[in-house]
Amino acid sequence: MPDDRITDLPFQFHADTRELLERLTAFMQEHVYPAEQQYRDSLAAGDDRWQIPPVMEEMKKLARDAGLWNLFMSDSALGAGLDNLSYAPLAEQMGRSLIGAEVFNCSAPDTGNMEVLWRYGSEQQKKQWLEPLLEGTIRSAFCMTEPAVASSDATNIAATITRDGDSYIVNGQKWWSSGAMDPRCKIFIVMGISNPDNSRHQQHSMILVPVDTAGVDIIRALTVFGYDDAPHGHAEINFDNVRVTADMLILGEGRGFEIAQGRLGPGRIHHCMRMIGLAQRALESMCQRASSRQAFGKSLSDMGSIRQLIAKSAAEIEQARLLTLNTAAKIDHDGNKAARNAIAMIKVVAPKMAQRVLDRAIQVFGGAGVSQDYFLAHAWAAARSIRIADGPDEVHLAALGKWVIREHS
Amino acid sequence: MPDDRITDLPFQFHADTRELLERLTAFMQEHVYPAEQQYRDSLAAGDDRWQIPPVMEEMKKLARDAGLWNLFMSDSALGAGLDNLSYAPLAEQMGRSLIGAEVFNCSAPDTGNMEVLWRYGSEQQKKQWLEPLLEGTIRSAFCMTEPAVASSDATNIAATITRDGDSYIVNGQKWWSSGAMDPRCKIFIVMGISNPDNSRHQQHSMILVPVDTAGVDIIRALTVFGYDDAPHGHAEINFDNVRVTADMLILGEGRGFEIAQGRLGPGRIHHCMRMIGLAQRALESMCQRASSRQAFGKSLSDMGSIRQLIAKSAAEIEQARLLTLNTAAKIDHDGNKAARNAIAMIKVVAPKMAQRVLDRAIQVFGGAGVSQDYFLAHAWAAARSIRIADGPDEVHLAALGKWVIREHS
Amino acid sequence: MPDDRITDLPFQFHADTRELLERLTAFMQEHVYPAEQQYRDSLAAGDDRWQIPPVMEEMKKLARDAGLWNLFMSDSALGAGLDNLSYAPLAEQMGRSLIGAEVFNCSAPDTGNMEVLWRYGSEQQKKQWLEPLLEGTIRSAFCMTEPAVASSDATNIAATITRDGDSYIVNGQKWWSSGAMDPRCKIFIVMGISNPDNSRHQQHSMILVPVDTAGVDIIRALTVFGYDDAPHGHAEINFDNVRVTADMLILGEGRGFEIAQGRLGPGRIHHCMRMIGLAQRALESMCQRASSRQAFGKSLSDMGSIRQLIAKSAAEIEQARLLTLNTAAKIDHDGNKAARNAIAMIKVVAPKMAQRVLDRAIQVFGGAGVSQDYFLAHAWAAARSIRIADGPDEVHLAALGKWVIREHS
Amino acid sequence: MPDDRITDLPFQFHADTRELLERLTAFMQEHVYPAEQQYRDSLAAGDDRWQIPPVMEEMKKLARDAGLWNLFMSDSALGAGLDNLSYAPLAEQMGRSLIGAEVFNCSAPDTGNMEVLWRYGSEQQKKQWLEPLLEGTIRSAFCMTEPAVASSDATNIAATITRDGDSYIVNGQKWWSSGAMDPRCKIFIVMGISNPDNSRHQQHSMILVPVDTAGVDIIRALTVFGYDDAPHGHAEINFDNVRVTADMLILGEGRGFEIAQGRLGPGRIHHCMRMIGLAQRALESMCQRASSRQAFGKSLSDMGSIRQLIAKSAAEIEQARLLTLNTAAKIDHDGNKAARNAIAMIKVVAPKMAQRVLDRAIQVFGGAGVSQDYFLAHAWAAARSIRIADGPDEVHLAALGKWVIREHS
Repeated sequence: MPDDRITDLPFQFHADTRELLERLTAFMQEHVYPAEQQYRDSLAAGDDRWQIPPVMEEMKKLARDAGLWNLFMSDSALGAGLDNLSYAPLAEQMGRSLIGAEVFNCSAPDTGNMEVLWRYGSEQQKKQWLEPLLEGTIRSAFCMTEPAVASSDATNIAATITRDGDSYIVNGQKWWSSGAMDPRCKIFIVMGISNPDNSRHQQHSMILVPVDTAGVDIIRALTVFGYDDAPHGHAEINFDNVRVTADMLILGEGRGFEIAQGRLGPGRIHHCMRMIGLAQRALESMCQRASSRQAFGKSLSDMGSIRQLIAKSAAEIEQARLLTLNTAAKIDHDGNKAARNAIAMIKVVAPKMAQRVLDRAIQVFGGAGVSQDYFLAHAWAAARSIRIADGPDEVHLAALGKWVIREHS
Repeated sequence: MPDDRITDLPFQFHADTRELLERLTAFMQEHVYPAEQQYRDSLAAGDDRWQIPPVMEEMKKLARDAGLWNLFMSDSALGAGLDNLSYAPLAEQMGRSLIGAEVFNCSAPDTGNMEVLWRYGSEQQKKQWLEPLLEGTIRSAFCMTEPAVASSDATNIAATITRDGDSYIVNGQKWWSSGAMDPRCKIFIVMGISNPDNSRHQQHSMILVPVDTAGVDIIRALTVFGYDDAPHGHAEINFDNVRVTADMLILGEGRGFEIAQGRLGPGRIHHCMRMIGLAQRALESMCQRASSRQAFGKSLSDMGSIRQLIAKSAAEIEQARLLTLNTAAKIDHDGNKAARNAIAMIKVVAPKMAQRVLDRAIQVFGGAGVSQDYFLAHAWAAARSIRIADGPDEVHLAALGKWVIREHS
Repeated sequence: MPDDRITDLPFQFHADTRELLERLTAFMQEHVYPAEQQYRDSLAAGDDRWQIPPVMEEMKKLARDAGLWNLFMSDSALGAGLDNLSYAPLAEQMGRSLIGAEVFNCSAPDTGNMEVLWRYGSEQQKKQWLEPLLEGTIRSAFCMTEPAVASSDATNIAATITRDGDSYIVNGQKWWSSGAMDPRCKIFIVMGISNPDNSRHQQHSMILVPVDTAGVDIIRALTVFGYDDAPHGHAEINFDNVRVTADMLILGEGRGFEIAQGRLGPGRIHHCMRMIGLAQRALESMCQRASSRQAFGKSLSDMGSIRQLIAKSAAEIEQARLLTLNTAAKIDHDGNKAARNAIAMIKVVAPKMAQRVLDRAIQVFGGAGVSQDYFLAHAWAAARSIRIADGPDEVHLAALGKWVIREHS
Repeated sequence: MPDDRITDLPFQFHADTRELLERLTAFMQEHVYPAEQQYRDSLAAGDDRWQIPPVMEEMKKLARDAGLWNLFMSDSALGAGLDNLSYAPLAEQMGRSLIGAEVFNCSAPDTGNMEVLWRYGSEQQKKQWLEPLLEGTIRSAFCMTEPAVASSDATNIAATITRDGDSYIVNGQKWWSSGAMDPRCKIFIVMGISNPDNSRHQQHSMILVPVDTAGVDIIRALTVFGYDDAPHGHAEINFDNVRVTADMLILGEGRGFEIAQGRLGPGRIHHCMRMIGLAQRALESMCQRASSRQAFGKSLSDMGSIRQLIAKSAAEIEQARLLTLNTAAKIDHDGNKAARNAIAMIKVVAPKMAQRVLDRAIQVFGGAGVSQDYFLAHAWAAARSIRIADGPDEVHLAALGKWVIREHS
């Protein structure tokens, strides 16, 4: 085992990764955790929840200056140039704070959208949209899910992208377009049916739609267990005869599913990495709380039932972490498709694990745990929503079950 | 089995109860469910979330005129005069809507506070506070939990109630005083230490403190997950040398625990009854949603995994319902103390069951399930907080375990 | 609540039931529990495990003399004449011992077979087989499940019952014919296809086959987690051109499913009642063990984690008991078909609950728990097998889910 | 990632390990799986279950000739010379069959006992006992657990080892001495109190006691659920004034706990590795069964509920496997003590995981699953007993919880 091992894991991280992780960890301690309350207060105090608390832009500048920027980007010309396994411990670290990823320009849905543009975008698309996204000067949203259909089956998606001369016309109702309420959000990637006569997985396309295009109507912000997640928000958006030039189409007509696959693999595991971080922080908080409170004549930390909650949480986190790292390594080594079993597993495992650990932490914190005074309740809501986002658990389990059966029979 | 059986249960409800339930069910259908969205919209639209949506007072008037009023009150001179078993199906029915109980003047914490005043209050206290509470013209809060100590062990409570001549002086910090943000809230029942030299369970008293007394400072509203539960709210309150006349003390010095016991028994099971109703409604919603959505070429209602979610939910609801009814019957027949095992069981079982069923329903609804468009996410947050309120699960399980061991060894 | 209430339940048992339960409970204490070890030793010592330990026939005589006989039989001319709700607490009591039910001539599969003969048998069939079964002088088996097909779908059953002149010829392979190894077993009820051209649920018949008929070959005894369940056993049986007279057919050709439905409803809940008894006894044993053992300087009964196991077990038992009673009452009041949801629920709930409680008790007992020194491991195996017998959990959940969805959409 | 990667894991196995695993896998296919039924039949047919089926000694010879022998032994002079991480995939492979480990002289308790002798034994002890154990000509047992005390707390152990001149006299009752019924078992390692006045963890010693010493009385074989685990067996043994020469004491008086710690670390993880193998084989069997059976008009493998069972199993196995590998790597890299959190985690996680997966497989197999026709039920019983052996789950969770709290507060 080489000296540059940075964790207790046998997974061998490069010295570079180790160095990044150390700096990132220090940055989180120095800047991010202390800013959390200020960030929340700033949102709570203002008349308009849809403004960016200044502390965020300040931190972004610091992070960029420190070279902790675009860490997710595997193209070293554009970002850190890390593979998934190397990015994993960094994403875990950022994920410990709900405002962490954005500081380092590594937050969803921008990361996925940048990947799409980087992999499938034209030079012009890259210049116009990828560059400012990488700069962190604009943000983006991804418009896929629709209120009227079970979007767990993406072939249900019914919005239309219709060729009309040199333009495409987009019509449809989308929701759960996360980040679309953000005042810095300038561009949407929209999925819709362009070629209804093609075979089932060749009917859809993805197209770029600038936020200020005529016919785009952001109807409202959806809430996640009461949280509006301002200033980013989850928007319901109406596209009413929205006309964009034909060069806004990404990759080509009927290639929407191909893009979605490329986008979702790493995206799913980025979420999982962050979930590990959230759960780990909840575990640490739970330990501290248990040590600081007394009931029935003894410290909570001396109670058998509390120790069990903590022991189980530690074991579950460690397993999910190892599965995440292993999945990252498989993607790096064998590609998204060969890693599909592992991706499906971790997509189901990590958010549920995080939910359980957060729930236990909330229980140990009592009333404080469900309140705005700690990150626990908000983090729980985030974890809960990930069990639905990018495909509900049931869809991943069904696919995984089918693949495993096929392998062994 | 008599003809007046109103459910499929062997529990025999009186003809009176049956008649009340029928009318209550009709009232819910006709007035309450249709008003839910209007109630939410009214809160969302206003500048001030701490105002009562007019539809609530309209419904209250209708309910009172219909004789569906104070159904919880077992004293027939003051309310419906029902025992707990008879009240249970009514509370379940009201509990189906998060705004249901208030319509019938049956919502916490008023019900518990009215019970306290009815059982333990002086004639003057009854006249001044119980009467308007029964009228529904004022509301109340219960100030027990404190931010600085593990309130799961009520002997930790540190606020002080100190005799000073003809007055008591109240000092301390309370939180999770639910309903205290409500503009109609006029009176608090506060628990604190009055006799520090007494034995452990005789040190505390309860005292009435009018909201507008000098030194009472409502600091802020706590959130439950992202919900502020306006217009009632969960307040953090500072009591700084708050002086009230000595006749505001309830029952006598050092009798706080005695009152708390009397208050909590039925209160706990009222919560449970309502949880059954919420879960039952979630089950029904889940069935309807599953029937109306298609994915992967078939209705969700035809999928084995969805049917399992629904089947398990139905079985869990039915078991919790029977346990609630049985507990109610035991309280009625044998008293709070003899029923303590059953009360501890249902306190742990019902909210967890509701959480599970609501979680499954949310999963079936997908993104809609976590949003403001359905009652599911808000109901889940309510169920979650009940696993902490009135004693966390761990405390009840520890006590129950101790009692069961003692019985059998 | 009347005076003759015998439990803490609101379910009102008749004075007659109460009196029976008292005598039955005393009989269990006096005769059955003390004989358990003797019964096991008798089997372990002999050369031949397929002989009845004499203590069993002694107890049967005592029980019969005491009027504790055929308690399951709802026809008061033939047995106790109790409805299901009245029988439930008696079956729970018998179920506390793995050898309990047989003592009172109330053990499966005889009870189900007697019900079949009583409901659907001809006068001659009753005289020849029902009478000695009711006397307890012979025993019987039920031959339904087959090794070659998924018998969870009973339409898969492939044995044939072919008319040939005045006879029927039975061919096929059966297994899990419980009790068929018992030396007192004289008669089989066999299910097979008689009318392959009928519609799906009218193809099968049931027929009586005496054990000593030519062509009947008991191949071997199956084990359940290592237990051969001697002296009753679970047989694999080959039927090779077994010829019986035509009057051995029960009810009529193609009516096998009709009989199976009538047989299985109450049979399923009898199993459940007994599971409640086993679990309750495990709970009591666990409490006693926890109180009598010390580790790490304190009694197991003072450990938080042990108290949780016990508290959860008590709550789960009580819920399953109430659901069983409620199901019994529904069957009595509304019939098997109207009670199908409740029957499916309890069939899934009770064995899983018993498994969990027994597993916890085993854990508290440590090595002793998995051994032959206590009833726990054997009882666990029995509970486990019931999750497969009479339809696996998955089949009941799927049906229940379908019915519940239909009700609410 | 180097070319010699043998699994999809990022854990990098040496080329040597890879080669061993390939040959081992082939050996299992060619010799072990085909012999399983013969082994069982041989035991079932004989008059005496406590004889070794000849096929076992034949396989041992083949394995030894093939160099697949003492793979567990990290001393390359005595065995394969592998570290824990390299041994892990081999142990997993052997663990797929309940008779696998013995074939390669890698079965408990001999492996642990050989480790004790290798690490702590005198030259004479090694010559006399370690050598024939390594040869596979004799076997051994470990006598620690006692029926009269909660052995989960090893300080409860009450057997005595008393110095008397040049001898020690051993008195006490032991049980769960696995392998002690094996006709080849020649030596016991016995733990008992030698120095009652020492501090709590210095009171016990370990001593070698030849099976045929006067005063050693093997009372009976215990069963695990219904399995006697012949021909090895789990013995209850009485030591009545058993006198052995003083040089039979291992390491020194009062050093029993020190030896136990050294013995148990790797032993615990060997069990876990084998559990992974059992679970993996159960998963594969479940897939095959699901593919080969039809019910309700479709293959079980097409049912959503079955696919979920399989998907969840796959994800749980993979997580436990990664945690086992990681723990092995930690032990190798940092030592037993530094790896104690990970060891506690995997000791709790792996057997429970195996239980769940085996339980699901049993459910998919139906009646066949609980019977002697498949390895599933027996494997389940083995997994269940490991949740008690070497410390029950509760003890490991309590310790782990305490350590984790200490780290983070």
